[in-house]
Amino acid sequence: MLTAKGAATRGRIVDAAAAEIRERGIASVTLDDIGRRSGTGKSQLFHYFPDGKEQLLLAVAEREADRVIEDQEPQLGQLTSWEAWQEWRDVVVEKYRRQGVNCPLGVLITEIGRATPAAQAVTGKLLAQWQRRIRAGIEDMKAAGEIRADVDPDRAAAALIAAIQGGVSILMSSGSSKHLEYALDLCLDYLRVSSS
Amino acid sequence: MLTAKGAATRGRIVDAAAAEIRERGIASVTLDDIGRRSGTGKSQLFHYFPDGKEQLLLAVAEREADRVIEDQEPQLGQLTSWEAWQEWRDVVVEKYRRQGVNCPLGVLITEIGRATPAAQAVTGKLLAQWQRRIRAGIEDMKAAGEIRADVDPDRAAAALIAAIQGGVSILMSSGSSKHLEYALDLCLDYLRVSSS
Repeated sequence: MLTAKGAATRGRIVDAAAAEIRERGIASVTLDDIGRRSGTGKSQLFHYFPDGKEQLLLAVAEREADRVIEDQEPQLGQLTSWEAWQEWRDVVVEKYRRQGVNCPLGVLITEIGRATPAAQAVTGKLLAQWQRRIRAGIEDMKAAGEIRADVDPDRAAAALIAAIQGGVSILMSSGSSKHLEYALDLCLDYLRVSSS
Repeated sequence: MLTAKGAATRGRIVDAAAAEIRERGIASVTLDDIGRRSGTGKSQLFHYFPDGKEQLLLAVAEREADRVIEDQEPQLGQLTSWEAWQEWRDVVVEKYRRQGVNCPLGVLITEIGRATPAAQAVTGKLLAQWQRRIRAGIEDMKAAGEIRADVDPDRAAAALIAAIQGGVSILMSSGSSKHLEYALDLCLDYLRVSSS
């Protein structure tokens, strides 16, 4: 367990590493850069990340995964009306459109190794968290009678996650947000239609 | 332009390379292996692929992309009843479930370089072909009065492509076909519901 001060220092290192990687690309960032930006020395870096760069990159990936959820707040946590769903949809599209072909999390996952258990744990946790929040929104709308009783919130939330994932990966290779938008719109139309 | 005989030889080389890569992994396949399997010599290999390995890999990627469509036939080309749509859905799920984490096209695209224009041309063409076929199915069902007139075939087809893409990439990192299935089911439910 880290002390509060230790956790703050560790967090400062991770934030500095995330910022350096976002600004300059993963290949050109050194531990010296991260130390300078976070105001920590090499001994501290190795104290918090004794296994070295690999371990630090994983912590940065976890931080970037948290940020994917944060970027959708407060909308993602308040899916209690159709207006709120539409707003969230726009936030997601705007986030990924702005991001374009450069996905900070994707860069880290590729570096760590897409097929490694560590990378898969990070993406698996992110998708599960995201899906849980969407499911909660569907459940709220069902409780309010806005979505038909026979819609399965878990299945519908999983479908939405797949739609976003696919839309974003097409956006990253084509540069166009159309697939993402149409996929989100179809899912929301499905949920809305099912209320009539 | 290749003569008919030349095209056949080139095709044999590409098929041999595709088979070797599928069986043994891209890293361990040599031009000698491909020559042996296709019954061609090195001079022929360089005649048809003067730019070398890169050019051959691209041709193999195009072959694998064609196969993605072929694997869904005849169902994908005959989406003229709800039974046909359901059958196609099952073929897609079964194909990717069997394939699991090993995507022959994905391996090649990664090797060529996901962000290169050549790789993006291959995936872009595949997605466009696939989407056109799905759109044709939606148009047929609209013409038959099975799908509501206000459903936009192009948008709905794009949404389905995004849903499959996302479902497959989650399958490849999680090993589970659930996201793919739920996403396909939601899209088909949407198309069906809109007919009532």
